[in-house]
Amino acid sequence: METLIPRRYAILTEGLLVGMHGKTAHGVLRYRDDAVVAVIDSHYAGKRVDEVLPALGSRAPIVASLEEAMKLGPTALLVGVATSGGKMPPAMRPTVLAAVDAGLEIVNGLHDCLKDDPEIVARAQRSGAQLWDVRVPPDDIPLFSGAAYNVRSQVVLAIGSDCAVGKMTAMLEVERAAKEEGARIEFVATGQTGILIAGKGIAVDRVISDFVTGAAEQLVLDAARNADVVFVEGQGSIFHPAYAPVTFGLLYGSAPDALVLCHRVGKTAIAGFENVELPDLAELVRDHEALIERIKPAKVVAIALDTSALSEQQARNAIAQTAKETGLPVDDPVRNGGAGLWHAIQKGIESTQKALDRAAAAARS
Amino acid sequence: METLIPRRYAILTEGLLVGMHGKTAHGVLRYRDDAVVAVIDSHYAGKRVDEVLPALGSRAPIVASLEEAMKLGPTALLVGVATSGGKMPPAMRPTVLAAVDAGLEIVNGLHDCLKDDPEIVARAQRSGAQLWDVRVPPDDIPLFSGAAYNVRSQVVLAIGSDCAVGKMTAMLEVERAAKEEGARIEFVATGQTGILIAGKGIAVDRVISDFVTGAAEQLVLDAARNADVVFVEGQGSIFHPAYAPVTFGLLYGSAPDALVLCHRVGKTAIAGFENVELPDLAELVRDHEALIERIKPAKVVAIALDTSALSEQQARNAIAQTAKETGLPVDDPVRNGGAGLWHAIQKGIESTQKALDRAAAAARS
Repeated sequence: METLIPRRYAILTEGLLVGMHGKTAHGVLRYRDDAVVAVIDSHYAGKRVDEVLPALGSRAPIVASLEEAMKLGPTALLVGVATSGGKMPPAMRPTVLAAVDAGLEIVNGLHDCLKDDPEIVARAQRSGAQLWDVRVPPDDIPLFSGAAYNVRSQVVLAIGSDCAVGKMTAMLEVERAAKEEGARIEFVATGQTGILIAGKGIAVDRVISDFVTGAAEQLVLDAARNADVVFVEGQGSIFHPAYAPVTFGLLYGSAPDALVLCHRVGKTAIAGFENVELPDLAELVRDHEALIERIKPAKVVAIALDTSALSEQQARNAIAQTAKETGLPVDDPVRNGGAGLWHAIQKGIESTQKALDRAAAAARS
Repeated sequence: METLIPRRYAILTEGLLVGMHGKTAHGVLRYRDDAVVAVIDSHYAGKRVDEVLPALGSRAPIVASLEEAMKLGPTALLVGVATSGGKMPPAMRPTVLAAVDAGLEIVNGLHDCLKDDPEIVARAQRSGAQLWDVRVPPDDIPLFSGAAYNVRSQVVLAIGSDCAVGKMTAMLEVERAAKEEGARIEFVATGQTGILIAGKGIAVDRVISDFVTGAAEQLVLDAARNADVVFVEGQGSIFHPAYAPVTFGLLYGSAPDALVLCHRVGKTAIAGFENVELPDLAELVRDHEALIERIKPAKVVAIALDTSALSEQQARNAIAQTAKETGLPVDDPVRNGGAGLWHAIQKGIESTQKALDRAAAAARS
């Protein structure tokens, strides 16, 4: 729950800027570009980020070495990759050590902790470099109590067909649109990239399994103090063979009033577990609603579709087709901005509230 | 995964011997009575365990103090309670400290670690007392890989309508019956009591959430080396608002071939979350089968019913009634021994195997 102080990041991605393992870097470049002085990646050095990844909207320079990045005045080196298992790629270690020696703060979103690395710790002590392991959760998380059932704010949770289908992005785009309209909104970060962007949060995949629901609940209770609507970043998928426990921790622990289902067009199976074929989206909606019906009922009120691989026309068709198949409002908030989804969420919350009021009135009479 | 060396336990329950918080003690008294010299609990002192809890079949004496227990020659003090949140009850601390000073090994199944307690650690260093925090998982658990899908052994997982409905007990009773018939069986312990009984295992509720499925997979791979059938102790319930992430970790990570549903007669809601009403058992069977159908399909092959609150005749009726409602073999393995359930599991595995063979033959022709 560390608060973000103004940082000027050099983001280290060394060979992994493009592709799924670079998603930490992508998130920060997209939503905190103002805080990035350079990306360090010798594979793409000499270009700007928008020449390699135009969708991010970042003009940060890509340089080949820490030495070059230092000329641009960073205060921190961000280890900007998310590898399977969370280990630091060996190719990055020399740069990290050099940055420690240069006194830069090291900001690390990997599972592997800087503070568990004796060499890094020793050299940081000598140089005065600060170390921030973003994934390390607070050590005083309580068990889930049910208090989240009683918050006055409306809680909206992003769910998804898989990892890396745009759950964080959808919530951030909706947050931006809602704030532009003056709504009292809080974004709840539950993963390392989200925490880097929001400046606080808990990496729930790093929390002891008995306490994941409790962590989600605490995040919601905290955010609800200052917001009418709380947007919770989701993780994984209920059908993910490896990561579903984290997904269920958020689904049960954040006690959502409404769900936004996120999906990438064309995805038909869980990445890395191609034997796990996904149901169609209408069924995925029903599966989620059925699961939480006995605990705290909530409906899927909108679908966020990642259409980044499609042309404008194809995207329009995919959005229309998905809306027809599911009967739900559908949009790509990156392509079209978050306002459409935000309005759909508001309507969904409103109609759920009316249904609850009717049920309460019926119970009284 | 520490191996159990022969221990002579004094079990400390101080006021909590009877009731749900005493379940660690109950498990050890039921399945490792040979290793227990005394229970320390001033509320019941002067009696034998079978006078207070006849169902456990233990004649161990209950004494009021460590001093009295020491006359019976224990080698270890077992902190025999499972409190919410895993804190040591303050009333137990003086006895634990005295046992440390007396040089007894301290065996602790609580979330709170002895090794994080400076006073206990310091006094243990002086007296030479060993400290075993049973819940602390190994620190080298890999992510789930899918290797569990390919083990040759049949994997049977206990699932349940809630916590504390007899999942561990059912698997241990079936293990006992199967071993008596000469079957090559391994019991996989996933909670502190099971680990104390089996001498190895991982307390999955203490594993970082991203690695729970990986922990379950490693346990299965390890057990499958020496067994034709692996019985996995389940945890929690898919509808438990707080603990479901652990449940899903086992359901997905152990990649079971067959499920045994455990339930206590009369239970209608999740303990502590009475708003969460349970579906009937036939629906609970369908819910579990539907959840894993996309990942690794498995069927519920038998139901283990805890009828301990009923008379003999009531129990017979409840078992017959449940069998009728679900169409599945049903038994109370504590009341009637595990042989009936073991035979039902064998039949279930066999008929699943035949169905798979038929499907494979159809695919070839």
